[in-house]
Amino acid sequence: MVIYLISNDDKMNKVQEFNEYRSKMNGKILSGSNKVIKRIFNLDTNAFTDGVIDQKTKEMIGLSSSLVLRCDDCVRYHLQTCYELGVSREELEEILSIGTLIGGTIVIPHLRRAIEFWEELEQQDV
Amino acid sequence: MVIYLISNDDKMNKVQEFNEYRSKMNGKILSGSNKVIKRIFNLDTNAFTDGVIDQKTKEMIGLSSSLVLRCDDCVRYHLQTCYELGVSREELEEILSIGTLIGGTIVIPHLRRAIEFWEELEQQDV
Amino acid sequence: MVIYLISNDDKMNKVQEFNEYRSKMNGKILSGSNKVIKRIFNLDTNAFTDGVIDQKTKEMIGLSSSLVLRCDDCVRYHLQTCYELGVSREELEEILSIGTLIGGTIVIPHLRRAIEFWEELEQQDV
Amino acid sequence: MVIYLISNDDKMNKVQEFNEYRSKMNGKILSGSNKVIKRIFNLDTNAFTDGVIDQKTKEMIGLSSSLVLRCDDCVRYHLQTCYELGVSREELEEILSIGTLIGGTIVIPHLRRAIEFWEELEQQDV
Amino acid sequence: MVIYLISNDDKMNKVQEFNEYRSKMNGKILSGSNKVIKRIFNLDTNAFTDGVIDQKTKEMIGLSSSLVLRCDDCVRYHLQTCYELGVSREELEEILSIGTLIGGTIVIPHLRRAIEFWEELEQQDV
Amino acid sequence: MVIYLISNDDKMNKVQEFNEYRSKMNGKILSGSNKVIKRIFNLDTNAFTDGVIDQKTKEMIGLSSSLVLRCDDCVRYHLQTCYELGVSREELEEILSIGTLIGGTIVIPHLRRAIEFWEELEQQDV
Repeated sequence: MVIYLISNDDKMNKVQEFNEYRSKMNGKILSGSNKVIKRIFNLDTNAFTDGVIDQKTKEMIGLSSSLVLRCDDCVRYHLQTCYELGVSREELEEILSIGTLIGGTIVIPHLRRAIEFWEELEQQDV
Repeated sequence: MVIYLISNDDKMNKVQEFNEYRSKMNGKILSGSNKVIKRIFNLDTNAFTDGVIDQKTKEMIGLSSSLVLRCDDCVRYHLQTCYELGVSREELEEILSIGTLIGGTIVIPHLRRAIEFWEELEQQDV
Repeated sequence: MVIYLISNDDKMNKVQEFNEYRSKMNGKILSGSNKVIKRIFNLDTNAFTDGVIDQKTKEMIGLSSSLVLRCDDCVRYHLQTCYELGVSREELEEILSIGTLIGGTIVIPHLRRAIEFWEELEQQDV
Repeated sequence: MVIYLISNDDKMNKVQEFNEYRSKMNGKILSGSNKVIKRIFNLDTNAFTDGVIDQKTKEMIGLSSSLVLRCDDCVRYHLQTCYELGVSREELEEILSIGTLIGGTIVIPHLRRAIEFWEELEQQDV
Repeated sequence: MVIYLISNDDKMNKVQEFNEYRSKMNGKILSGSNKVIKRIFNLDTNAFTDGVIDQKTKEMIGLSSSLVLRCDDCVRYHLQTCYELGVSREELEEILSIGTLIGGTIVIPHLRRAIEFWEELEQQDV
Repeated sequence: MVIYLISNDDKMNKVQEFNEYRSKMNGKILSGSNKVIKRIFNLDTNAFTDGVIDQKTKEMIGLSSSLVLRCDDCVRYHLQTCYELGVSREELEEILSIGTLIGGTIVIPHLRRAIEFWEELEQQDV
């Protein structure tokens, strides 16, 4: 028998883990002197605000675009904002189904991780 | 030497050219015996019908997903359906801006061709 | 401080870990109501059955296609079916060499993980 | 009315056009002094010869891998070798169906061009 | 009745054709009202100016990055700036060889078109 | 009964972990009999040696090309060689900014991991 000792304090769910790492590293990146990188981060915030298309629709567009490009972290980011903006589970499934059809079965592993992350968002909310 | 005379009437714009080639080749593909291919084509039709998300939003999602994957023909297809469903030029630009930001400057050549195709759709409509 | 005790029996190798996660999440995905997703999963099963091309060759085709697209989980899935269908280590290396040549040196990290997974399949079999 | 004059001598079918351009440019590339490029071209020839896997199967693997990566010229190259090695239309459709399922509907435009090229190979053969 | 005779003089080479189309469409894109797109175009100019890394090296980095992403128009753009900044044919081949090795043999069709475009740049210069 | 206490000393940083796994698996891959794979590994070494372009510039080209292709392990490899060849933090940021602009915001998660790895290289060096 092998025993691993893991302290409880270190154990985070995937939502917290993602947000903490993302926040820590973004801080380091933006504390640098490179203006091009800073402006790209800035644009990322601006592109998803209400315009002639509302924010919720833009986030759904961002989610599907991230899924077909198979970027798990980008998917997680848009899942969170979609969840906060009131996207329903059924709406989520329709967005993911479009992304999986367009991007093919290689998208399925990312679909699995998206559903897992979404369910953590739901649990956190209870 | 043989000389081909091509009258102006035979000269198609990009919208017609795309639709005729697409239609001709889809016919050939679907006249084959392979069931997997036929079902994928079938799914493609089903995925973009009204559901909990309306058709127009789904087409905007399809457009951005096609753009980030840099698939000109897929972009053209969704540009047409977006145009028919009443997407405005300003809405179009917001969708394309999200796709260009997510997918990077390598998307720009596809952005150029998307705008060109959209303007042909506008001209055809006059 | 809380201490988690993890017995050796709970420690899975990568093959088991992959299969359990895949099976659990596929169950969740397929228990949803979205028909497009269900049909894509269905097609995935149908496309790799014996046809005019036998199943083993189809799995080799699926393996190389997954490798060039750099989808580790897809590679793992096809490695398992290839292994079960009697693909030899030498055949495996020829498939992977074609994928690495076509997809370039960015495929090499996935090649490493493919070989690691294959060796776990061999060990499990002893 | 507008008349374009195009001499017959310049009109080639897509198979000839592809082969002539490919051959001309490969000649220029290989006449250079860069050894890395020459060796990659060399490897490309070696990887598809008979091994523990036969040449025909390797070409089918190369075809699907090229299709999912959406490389029309690579697809054309493997379509030709597949055709010469006796791959049947039904076998072709099974390979393409696997590639389309794995790579998604963004593969469909490349599927259209693949079928068109294959039919030119068939016509040339009559 | 008007008859167009496409004489050699009217025939643009690929360099001119690329630049005219690019310039025309960029004009249309930038005349729109979308700020995100305008800023991305702006950043594209800024990122390649002299910094701690000189402009020539940045353009070589841009060329290889465009090549591995298989974006012909992006490759053409950086080929032009590389040419203007004095990149030699031998340097060009080393950049392209790195890109082809990293990105695999699917890069080769883009390598052919890159060499063709470079030779048009050389001829134009005579 | 054996109890493992994972002390700080046993905990490898990401640099060591990457190098040990890479080295172990490369050893297994190269002990196989497949010549195509061996030659690709060989080419990888040759392509980055001093030529008409110096090694440091080649590694910067390799870094950006790996980043836009979103290959974390390839990025890590080139980060190490760049670090050893004296690339400064400011130079690093300029390379990464070009890659992020070309490849889009989907590159940002890889940018985070690149900065994290670079800081481990800096710490190891103290």
